[in-house]
Amino acid sequence: MSYNAPLKDMQFVLNELANLAEVNALPGCEDATPDTVEAVLEENAKFCGEVIAPLNHAGDQEPSFWKDGAVTTTKGFKEAFRAYADAGWQGVQHPQEFGGQGLPKLVATPCMEMLHGANLAFALVALLSDGAIEALLTAGSDAQKARFLEPLVSGQWTGTMNLTEPQAGSDLAAVRTRAEPQGDGTYKIFGTKIFITYGDHDMAENIVHLVLARTPDAPPGVKGISLFIVPKFMINDDGSLGARNDVHCVSIEHKLGIKASPTAVLQFGDGGGAIGTLVGEENRGLEYMFIMMNAARFGVGMQGVGLAEHAYQQAVAFAKDRIQSRDVAGSSGPVAIINHPDVRRMLMSMRAQTEAARALAYVGAGISDLAHHHPDEATRQANLAVYEYLVPVIKGWSTEMSENVARDGVQVHGGMGFIEETGAAQHYRDAKILTIYEGTTAIQANDLVGRKTVRDGGAVARSLRAQMDEVVQQLAETQSIDLTAIARQLRDGASAFESVVDFVVENAKNDPRGVYAGSVTYLKLAGIVLGGWQMARAALVAQRKLDAGEGDAAFYRAKIATARFFADHILSQAHSLRHAIMEGAAGVLALDVEQF
Amino acid sequence: MSYNAPLKDMQFVLNELANLAEVNALPGCEDATPDTVEAVLEENAKFCGEVIAPLNHAGDQEPSFWKDGAVTTTKGFKEAFRAYADAGWQGVQHPQEFGGQGLPKLVATPCMEMLHGANLAFALVALLSDGAIEALLTAGSDAQKARFLEPLVSGQWTGTMNLTEPQAGSDLAAVRTRAEPQGDGTYKIFGTKIFITYGDHDMAENIVHLVLARTPDAPPGVKGISLFIVPKFMINDDGSLGARNDVHCVSIEHKLGIKASPTAVLQFGDGGGAIGTLVGEENRGLEYMFIMMNAARFGVGMQGVGLAEHAYQQAVAFAKDRIQSRDVAGSSGPVAIINHPDVRRMLMSMRAQTEAARALAYVGAGISDLAHHHPDEATRQANLAVYEYLVPVIKGWSTEMSENVARDGVQVHGGMGFIEETGAAQHYRDAKILTIYEGTTAIQANDLVGRKTVRDGGAVARSLRAQMDEVVQQLAETQSIDLTAIARQLRDGASAFESVVDFVVENAKNDPRGVYAGSVTYLKLAGIVLGGWQMARAALVAQRKLDAGEGDAAFYRAKIATARFFADHILSQAHSLRHAIMEGAAGVLALDVEQF
Repeated sequence: MSYNAPLKDMQFVLNELANLAEVNALPGCEDATPDTVEAVLEENAKFCGEVIAPLNHAGDQEPSFWKDGAVTTTKGFKEAFRAYADAGWQGVQHPQEFGGQGLPKLVATPCMEMLHGANLAFALVALLSDGAIEALLTAGSDAQKARFLEPLVSGQWTGTMNLTEPQAGSDLAAVRTRAEPQGDGTYKIFGTKIFITYGDHDMAENIVHLVLARTPDAPPGVKGISLFIVPKFMINDDGSLGARNDVHCVSIEHKLGIKASPTAVLQFGDGGGAIGTLVGEENRGLEYMFIMMNAARFGVGMQGVGLAEHAYQQAVAFAKDRIQSRDVAGSSGPVAIINHPDVRRMLMSMRAQTEAARALAYVGAGISDLAHHHPDEATRQANLAVYEYLVPVIKGWSTEMSENVARDGVQVHGGMGFIEETGAAQHYRDAKILTIYEGTTAIQANDLVGRKTVRDGGAVARSLRAQMDEVVQQLAETQSIDLTAIARQLRDGASAFESVVDFVVENAKNDPRGVYAGSVTYLKLAGIVLGGWQMARAALVAQRKLDAGEGDAAFYRAKIATARFFADHILSQAHSLRHAIMEGAAGVLALDVEQF
Repeated sequence: MSYNAPLKDMQFVLNELANLAEVNALPGCEDATPDTVEAVLEENAKFCGEVIAPLNHAGDQEPSFWKDGAVTTTKGFKEAFRAYADAGWQGVQHPQEFGGQGLPKLVATPCMEMLHGANLAFALVALLSDGAIEALLTAGSDAQKARFLEPLVSGQWTGTMNLTEPQAGSDLAAVRTRAEPQGDGTYKIFGTKIFITYGDHDMAENIVHLVLARTPDAPPGVKGISLFIVPKFMINDDGSLGARNDVHCVSIEHKLGIKASPTAVLQFGDGGGAIGTLVGEENRGLEYMFIMMNAARFGVGMQGVGLAEHAYQQAVAFAKDRIQSRDVAGSSGPVAIINHPDVRRMLMSMRAQTEAARALAYVGAGISDLAHHHPDEATRQANLAVYEYLVPVIKGWSTEMSENVARDGVQVHGGMGFIEETGAAQHYRDAKILTIYEGTTAIQANDLVGRKTVRDGGAVARSLRAQMDEVVQQLAETQSIDLTAIARQLRDGASAFESVVDFVVENAKNDPRGVYAGSVTYLKLAGIVLGGWQMARAALVAQRKLDAGEGDAAFYRAKIATARFFADHILSQAHSLRHAIMEGAAGVLALDVEQF
């Protein structure tokens, strides 16, 4: 059950598809030279493989537990997080000003993938801290930044996001937690938050809770929500830890997966009020939270990729090792099951989807760097729009994909996959949260339809389609059977994608229910077409390298075969998805509630 | 977390699609009158809902456990199985001669669905007993029948199937368990069997193990395997229980799901040899085992349908109850989430796939009854060929479908679905075994390609396609928008199905790897097209009833809407699946093993 970061594919994607060189040329990204990036990735891979991955199965079998108001994490987690923090990994993407390494998102992204791939439950503590840092960087006061950022960036403290309440799952309009101003710049917070990831633990000195709550005069609904910092321990003026704040973990959940990651119910203010300070302005909490959330959504997409990679590696190792039954084309005796065509099909499906989602996410990360660092304002804006289009797809599609991959991973193992000791089942259980938290796939799809497609009249989507056409053209000009086969599927996929974008833009206003009935299907279509586009680009690069006799021919041939698989097995679904979106609403919406 | 058997849909399928009247007219099926069947189903539904379903979640949370060589099952299981046996449910489909009710398979099938739907882990003990009964009826000697059948049919004893060994999962050629003849008609059995469902338990007085083993002079491979009866307790001549046999449960597995069902490692002969008697002739064990297995495979298909129904009901109940967020078309406040289009899409997908798989399985059961009871030999043979074609599809597709349905069931619950107390996650975990045991989906697909399609040159498959064409014709002749939409998808689906059958028949010999690379995809295509055909038939019946003003209009309208959903969202996948089968082998097979 070991995990080896797929450095070769990561480097390929970074350099050939996501334009690391272009990112490296941006102001503020000068440190991200190819050599530095290679060194960072190798070091990170070593650390994740040797220190973090070995704790993955242990965390599942001996989960974190709650006793007398406090959480004890799985044996080894505390030390591993110390090592993670001490090596500076929490700070990879955060500003040097606060102790980080200030590397671009494009470099932080493979680091993130490795951590998640090694151990999803462990990696969550880092992901949540990233979100808290992001929110404070954007909306925190100078004093808040000075007080909280360095210990968060160094991993001395960790962060949490407190949105959900018992009566309000995805619906933040229903948030009831109260914040009462004390007249001294502080607020007293009262309420219950649930599903708080790493809401309590023993891996760091302090926990910085970012909490959504309502001030007394706040308007109802989402426009009346403010964001507060509520540390577990108050901080003295000299930065040392002070009194215990009035926020307490009253229980943790008994979950299907990610069991090592404590999911807390937090009670604020039962002992007189938890002390918090306002982040930014009153009633703008949702806006700030969305900053965290956008970063976290991308991160959850990377969890999907990392988990899929881990499940794939485990299935490959089993399939090479397990000897059973003769080859279907005839063999003198039983063979390793990797030789059976359907095992091969499952492994290729796992591999192709993982590589496609990785490529799309890294390309997205590079675009985010352009959006933040490019000297030209118009270029920044254009890239930001594309990045924002991609986020719900990266989150939604990569995680849905990871469920399928984890499922196939169990299936490759046969009966052994159903036995918990084997470890394949853990991925199947762990994966199921990814399509739910940080916004379910349906919520990502609503975002994709509403804010990302309808609002700009489909402009960004169509610009992406135009780029696909160029790739189709280049593929079709080759003499390769594989590349021309890919071209056909990408052409059809891009055409289906454009039809659906037109359909969504045209009908969202007059027939919202009809359009939203197909929203998740649209998200899946976008994922496979955008992912298929990246795989097609990868095949083009690989073919050029092979033609030029450069580099590792086996790697490039495998890349072309994997892209071909993706085109014929995944991208080919575009036709059916288009039909389901454009013709399928009648079947979705026909029944009265009473008929269910 | 209650389960209510879907009696209305069951009755509809039995009477309108599976021709209960025709089965009732067969010799030996005279008892299966509409009134009797209705009464049996109602009684069974009551029993499963009130006695069996309440133990489902308990069995997951407090699984059976092993201690000192014996298994203690979940509290309540023993009493529930007594009640099940005492009410005669174990004998529904077994001959009256041995104490059964002798009802046709078509009537036993909904009973099976209800039991599995109520509690998969519990139902397995009954399913395995059915298999043992089937094998003894077919191949047992008169003495064996006289000794074992009555107590098995009455549920006084239970049965098991012992195939798998540590070194031999699906590959029975590798079976090593030895059977040494003692010269007195008995054999001593030595070996280890794993994954033995209900291999030990405390719910019945005795356990009748049916065990595959090799006699000393047996040829190697699958042609040298014989079948033995090895009871847990020896039986005295008067039928009373005698000495403990030398078969012992040395451990049970720690599994992903169906936790209440003990999965045993059985050790035969460590104390000198377990006493067994040969079933039928030496070296024909595999043949007999396949009789059990064919029955069990159909049963596992029903597990898929039952589990899907349960997951669907639970998701519907949650979706009606959970109030969250405004309607996408605008509402003054938050609404029950069943009103959100994507929740609706998931529920319809769960519902449509469950209904289609139910219809296909019941139709298959009716065909099985014709194959066994029809007075005309040619009719029996023709129906047997169709039934045998359907078995791998019913097993493979219904179970793959149930995984998707269980997944959507969790997803409908959002974050609550990830919490084990909610119960939705149990279905997700339980479902994962269904595509593995009694032959993985790949093994079903191999059977579908080799024995069921290539062997008869695609004759049965094409006869089914011809029947679909008639339905397309009838649908197209209606004025209904829904029915004509269904007609288009069924027409395209049937055409894709025929293309693939031709492809399989033409290429299986010269390019076996290329064909088997698409075998599971062919099975899925067969499932959705055959299921879509049944849903189309259902829509036709419903439309006729509506036109005639007969019966429950809301039910018939829902049936049409559900069939429409199936056509536009599921059947529409046929196009992509055909492409993946006929063009996709290159991508599946291109890599060398070392490239993984």
